[in-house]
Amino acid sequence: MAEQSRLDSVITLAQHRGFVFPSGDIYGGTRSAWDYGPLGVELKENIKREWWNTFVRGRGDMVGLDSAVILPTAVWEASGHIKVFSDPLTESLITHKRYRADHLFEAYEAEHGHPPVNGLADIPDPDHPDKVGQWTEIRQFSGLLKTFLGVVDDESGLHYLRPETAQGIFTNFANVLQTSRKKPPFGIGQIGKAFRNEITPGNFIFRTREFEQMEIEFFVEPGTDDEWFDKWIELCWDWFVDLGINVENIRRFEHPKDKLAHYSKRTIDIEYKFNFTGSEWGELMGVANRTDYDLKTHIEHAGKDLSFFDQNKNERFVPFVIEPSFGLTRALMAFLVDAYDEEEVPNAKGGTDKRTVLHLDPRLAPVKVAVLPLSRNERLSPLARSLADNLRKRRNVDFDDSGAIGRRYRRQDEIGTPFCVTVDFDSLEDNAVTVRDRDTMQQERIPVDELDAYLAGRLKEL
Amino acid sequence: MAEQSRLDSVITLAQHRGFVFPSGDIYGGTRSAWDYGPLGVELKENIKREWWNTFVRGRGDMVGLDSAVILPTAVWEASGHIKVFSDPLTESLITHKRYRADHLFEAYEAEHGHPPVNGLADIPDPDHPDKVGQWTEIRQFSGLLKTFLGVVDDESGLHYLRPETAQGIFTNFANVLQTSRKKPPFGIGQIGKAFRNEITPGNFIFRTREFEQMEIEFFVEPGTDDEWFDKWIELCWDWFVDLGINVENIRRFEHPKDKLAHYSKRTIDIEYKFNFTGSEWGELMGVANRTDYDLKTHIEHAGKDLSFFDQNKNERFVPFVIEPSFGLTRALMAFLVDAYDEEEVPNAKGGTDKRTVLHLDPRLAPVKVAVLPLSRNERLSPLARSLADNLRKRRNVDFDDSGAIGRRYRRQDEIGTPFCVTVDFDSLEDNAVTVRDRDTMQQERIPVDELDAYLAGRLKEL
Repeated sequence: MAEQSRLDSVITLAQHRGFVFPSGDIYGGTRSAWDYGPLGVELKENIKREWWNTFVRGRGDMVGLDSAVILPTAVWEASGHIKVFSDPLTESLITHKRYRADHLFEAYEAEHGHPPVNGLADIPDPDHPDKVGQWTEIRQFSGLLKTFLGVVDDESGLHYLRPETAQGIFTNFANVLQTSRKKPPFGIGQIGKAFRNEITPGNFIFRTREFEQMEIEFFVEPGTDDEWFDKWIELCWDWFVDLGINVENIRRFEHPKDKLAHYSKRTIDIEYKFNFTGSEWGELMGVANRTDYDLKTHIEHAGKDLSFFDQNKNERFVPFVIEPSFGLTRALMAFLVDAYDEEEVPNAKGGTDKRTVLHLDPRLAPVKVAVLPLSRNERLSPLARSLADNLRKRRNVDFDDSGAIGRRYRRQDEIGTPFCVTVDFDSLEDNAVTVRDRDTMQQERIPVDELDAYLAGRLKEL
Repeated sequence: MAEQSRLDSVITLAQHRGFVFPSGDIYGGTRSAWDYGPLGVELKENIKREWWNTFVRGRGDMVGLDSAVILPTAVWEASGHIKVFSDPLTESLITHKRYRADHLFEAYEAEHGHPPVNGLADIPDPDHPDKVGQWTEIRQFSGLLKTFLGVVDDESGLHYLRPETAQGIFTNFANVLQTSRKKPPFGIGQIGKAFRNEITPGNFIFRTREFEQMEIEFFVEPGTDDEWFDKWIELCWDWFVDLGINVENIRRFEHPKDKLAHYSKRTIDIEYKFNFTGSEWGELMGVANRTDYDLKTHIEHAGKDLSFFDQNKNERFVPFVIEPSFGLTRALMAFLVDAYDEEEVPNAKGGTDKRTVLHLDPRLAPVKVAVLPLSRNERLSPLARSLADNLRKRRNVDFDDSGAIGRRYRRQDEIGTPFCVTVDFDSLEDNAVTVRDRDTMQQERIPVDELDAYLAGRLKEL
């Protein structure tokens, strides 16, 4: 199938089956954010848990943190966000739609193989390709979302919603050092919401004003930073591949030296081949070598000592920081797109049917097992229900007794349920059930007594 | 020990050991929120997981949701928050500190056994108990936090941060109904941040401007609502007790009919005996019978059909809603306070020592197992480290090789670690380790091969 239509199919499926809904749908939505439905919230939780278990709980050199969304304004002054966190905004003189100038330039370069020589004067209006250079002057627009705390609604209460979780980690560096007995090399991981006043939210859940990050700040001795940078790129790459992302659909993109963020010595993104209109690849996560920029900045602004004293070497240093930063909702979108497939499968009449299936890794699948009584029957239903209640103690389980069994299999394939358990009339005699594998569609007879352990193993729960 | 000093001890321990830090500490903090350190974030995650497993994944009649923090403004107009979500504010003419008038009235009533007959004129200044009635007139102050979305920084972009997660559930009721094959009685659960511009944040993490909720909206047929209300109060009560809260420290508080919120037919809170200065009990969670108020309101404002058609009865109805609403960070605080103990234990010299211990349920404990090599030794350390790495695959594990073993036990007791695993010189011969139980302080010799399964059982992981 065409890759562009594949993306569209995933977006349709996600909304149709309850992964993702437009936020505030019944009031026309906000265009800023999406709500995660019953399947989406399970998939999102599973991604978070895998990330946390791999990078935080699973490592002796990592600890977790959960800092507030609204930090003191002084944090954003120190970090430079108030001064430099802005996007170049321009408005079409024809349609009065607003655009990010850098995005317009990138699209031009992708088409022509070189940047626009005369800047905006060379850029056509996306809605009127024949009209070129009809733009307002570029102005810098802050990406910070404001709010006001306290009982007086004026500038004295001005605060910002965090545009990244990272600064909450830096401001707690000394607290964590004091209370956790960790020393460099060690890292702090955090999962949480961040907010950016994007000029052009879009591409489904890829670019939203409200989103979730999974970030690590890994503190190392200066001089060992290049080595740790390389190590973290590998660890992040391996995480996606281990959870099923096809290596042909991801790539590394190294930021050119002259385009690095002001705090970075080196940055490599891992990109996924989303096949958006106008841009094939999109950023999934990035690893930056932030050097000692952030800690030194906070030392200067807060007047606190954020250095580390190495007792073995009898030396004091300000650690360098390697930052692997993941977009949670982008990861979710990539896992969905990568798992999506439309297959031709044999049907009972000797022909073929189309089946849509999400080949999600069982650790990510929102529903782990569906229990399906062969028919609505007063003897099958109670057995199937009690089986479902029992399996539900350890995992998310669906129960479905409506419609033909074939249609119910297809429903579960479409949402990526790894196993369907069918309770039939033989079950009443042999106390066994049929377990169907989503990917192979093979069926196996399993005694009810062994079912939980069988599923636990195949779902990689242990 | 005195109950007031017990609360203070918990707050000190929580900050000292890395459960909770003042948010933005190095910049003087915001007074609005707290950051959760390495132990706090694990404890919080464990509470969330228990809640989700019990009330969402564990029930066939529940599904999950994760809606956005920033919803369309129309949602808050419909819900009534823009009009009525406000607190009565007054300011001391002496100190210029601001107070919630209702809190001043409650404190007066608690002391005198009756409400102030002349209102504020009877109320002394908390900092100057001899000066009475020195207050500005009460004015209503909105508890909603504003923000501005979009590229024009004016009223057209005005949005609010949600003061509760509930409305995100109501606005998705039809989406969930369409995609999940559920029908009443069924519920939708959500965990997430909410924001309120509290006039007087305080009592540690009890009242903050940024906080987390765990909310359920349970949709039932009108007429069955009273029964479901009673059932949910029991389920919530049992959840706290099952996770170790002493029944003597919780109570039900039924809101008097004349003080019910405008949407509620009946509300019962579960309160915990925090022993705050000036107030012994504090709300942990509440169950409200919201009737069909919210769905009808959104039907009216959004012009969408949010009713349910019951095919069996051939009847259409707007469901009634039972709302169990938990404060996540309040639950965390209650679990900490309830688990805290100072005990006299025999020491090696025939006398007694004091030990501080958190008797947290193993499912909640932030660190499940601590691996302690008896001494820093080139033969013990590698064995202990590989043991820790192995145990870490399934749970959060600490490794500590610094200081006397007795002191290391005390450190783990203080943070509630259920089991300490000591690797000693015998371990090199018999391939077994000593497992110490936090609560009984009994030690048991366990073969290394059986350790993981032994701990999994005792930690209630299965």
